[in-house]
Amino acid sequence: MTPKITRFLTEQSPATPCLIVDLDVVEQQYKNLTEALPEGRIFYAVKANPAPAILKKLVALGSCFDAASIPEIEMCLAAGAQPSQVSYGNTLKKVGQIRQAREMGIDLFVFDSAEELEKIAEHAPGARVFCRLAVENEGADWPLSRKFGTTTAHAGELMRRAPSLGLIPHGLSFHVGSQQTGVAAYDRAIDIAGALYRSLKADGIDIRMLNLGGGYPTTYNRDVPDIHAFGETIIKALDRNFPGEHPELLLEPGRYMVGRAGIVSTEVILASRRGGAEKDPRWVYLDIGRFGGMAETEGEAIRYLFRTPHDQSDETRSPCILAGPSCDGVDIMYEKNRVPLPNALKSGDRIEILATGAYVSTYCSTGFNGFPPLEEHYI
Amino acid sequence: MTPKITRFLTEQSPATPCLIVDLDVVEQQYKNLTEALPEGRIFYAVKANPAPAILKKLVALGSCFDAASIPEIEMCLAAGAQPSQVSYGNTLKKVGQIRQAREMGIDLFVFDSAEELEKIAEHAPGARVFCRLAVENEGADWPLSRKFGTTTAHAGELMRRAPSLGLIPHGLSFHVGSQQTGVAAYDRAIDIAGALYRSLKADGIDIRMLNLGGGYPTTYNRDVPDIHAFGETIIKALDRNFPGEHPELLLEPGRYMVGRAGIVSTEVILASRRGGAEKDPRWVYLDIGRFGGMAETEGEAIRYLFRTPHDQSDETRSPCILAGPSCDGVDIMYEKNRVPLPNALKSGDRIEILATGAYVSTYCSTGFNGFPPLEEHYI
Repeated sequence: MTPKITRFLTEQSPATPCLIVDLDVVEQQYKNLTEALPEGRIFYAVKANPAPAILKKLVALGSCFDAASIPEIEMCLAAGAQPSQVSYGNTLKKVGQIRQAREMGIDLFVFDSAEELEKIAEHAPGARVFCRLAVENEGADWPLSRKFGTTTAHAGELMRRAPSLGLIPHGLSFHVGSQQTGVAAYDRAIDIAGALYRSLKADGIDIRMLNLGGGYPTTYNRDVPDIHAFGETIIKALDRNFPGEHPELLLEPGRYMVGRAGIVSTEVILASRRGGAEKDPRWVYLDIGRFGGMAETEGEAIRYLFRTPHDQSDETRSPCILAGPSCDGVDIMYEKNRVPLPNALKSGDRIEILATGAYVSTYCSTGFNGFPPLEEHYI
Repeated sequence: MTPKITRFLTEQSPATPCLIVDLDVVEQQYKNLTEALPEGRIFYAVKANPAPAILKKLVALGSCFDAASIPEIEMCLAAGAQPSQVSYGNTLKKVGQIRQAREMGIDLFVFDSAEELEKIAEHAPGARVFCRLAVENEGADWPLSRKFGTTTAHAGELMRRAPSLGLIPHGLSFHVGSQQTGVAAYDRAIDIAGALYRSLKADGIDIRMLNLGGGYPTTYNRDVPDIHAFGETIIKALDRNFPGEHPELLLEPGRYMVGRAGIVSTEVILASRRGGAEKDPRWVYLDIGRFGGMAETEGEAIRYLFRTPHDQSDETRSPCILAGPSCDGVDIMYEKNRVPLPNALKSGDRIEILATGAYVSTYCSTGFNGFPPLEEHYI
């Protein structure tokens, strides 16, 4: 909660549920990452939050962009980015989408299979491509490992084949998983990618780029390593793997850049021990839930922090099950990991959910149970 | 796949992904349920699919409506329903929403806690209320049991208290869980609700209604009991519990009414053994996934059937992992329960996902990864 957000809440008292993002925090995060890894070119993962205000702010700061789809590419260009600043970073692209991106001037495409490489070769001839490796996601609260990436052996094979298909084998990428709280994950992944990189170089493949993906964590309910700890580990691993000159370094932060810039303001609809007895669990139902934007509470993976109007008092707390407003039985955010909330909390109270700037607004459903999409305020 | 949908797909070849719903099937399902349980008044669970075309069709057939929110109530009234035909069936209501519903003429409200009952008493004085009981959801593919409902003891207490709060204690409800494939669940739940009903009657509470909720299944990947089997079990249980006269009977079908009326038309973006080896699992990525509407594949709970262009040939099949188009690692629909799909299936092929008329359109995210919401066609 920044002073700017606190002031906005007090003065505007916006209707709930809503997301409020302080753009100054985005700028600060950009600067922190740049400072921790000066040689890295930042490709902001647009999917984390594609709000025009965020994209414009990042364009002004000189950021590049990792886009997952044609609409995301369009949003980046509309915010003032040049096509050369945008990477088409989804390994899953329809042929029409590849053509469209190419026509828009996009020149950097990811792949992780022979089929996708061939599609890019046919529909974006001459483009620069990079191959995504599958690496361990241990330590990540939101893993990505199974769905994406290929083996180093197959990646080597495909990168060696790229020139004969008329493509430029530009680099390698990996993703250590989102909300990665262990610096060692980057260490291991750079060793794996580094070995392949050197072997490709030795074979005369003019590879130039290493894309470390995203994953850098934001602070939810527990401390995470400082971004400088990640920076130091990464630089050491690069020195070890590339003693002469480092490759061109790409970073794709999403959560790190916008997560802690935002808060969700929500209202308690009901707080009750439904069975009526003291032994019954206390349920707190909010006007936002898993289908209103809090999708990453699935499996209780991301554990947000809550601020209530009763936090300053000595009010006793009880562990509460937190659920959303819909008639859906799976619309429960925390049940195994109950949230200690003041017993004074009641229907109509306003709560803030911290660090919700990333992966909230666009996950929201179009009209689940008739509830309109989340309102957003960028200040 | 009805002939009407097949014709629409052939003639219009609509852009994918999209949902196509045959309204004739909705009408047929309404008639089937009416025939199986003639004494039941149908309150369609609007949340299953609130498309105006469906609501208008059901208004014309004489249906009533179970609404989860103010926007859903508005949609029902806009489709021509009278306020007396609408129940505010969400146990979670803000006080402003209760007042608003009351002003719109809504006279039937559910509750499952003392707090909610008190809110209704204050903001919709004189309204009819019914209490939701928690019952076992065994046999349901999409259970609802933990989040809603109270104990019979507490329900009895609250129903006895309602008159002193100025409310009319109208009835009891339960929900056996969605996609409930066991008829016995209704049998047990009616016994539980029946005992409380009779005890309230004996105490002079003028209770009149029993609401059996929804749960009636649609056919996905395996046979489910015919609706007449549910009807027979329910009538027997009612005869046993209410030997003289049955209570007024309410039914809240959602999935049953619209599930099999719809199909999703989707395109294969990529089909690949990413590692390049025959031993690697085959992944099929579609242009719709968990965040594009297929939310009920969470935990692989609802298992849809697929039609491909290669089904008629003798093509060999392999078990495939099915995933959505986004960069999100949890956007995987079936991995444990792999789907046998033809080896000939390739990028660009068009697939139909059957029985997707319910709980697909509105679960869709507003713009996850930049993908626009699902297109819908009602024919």
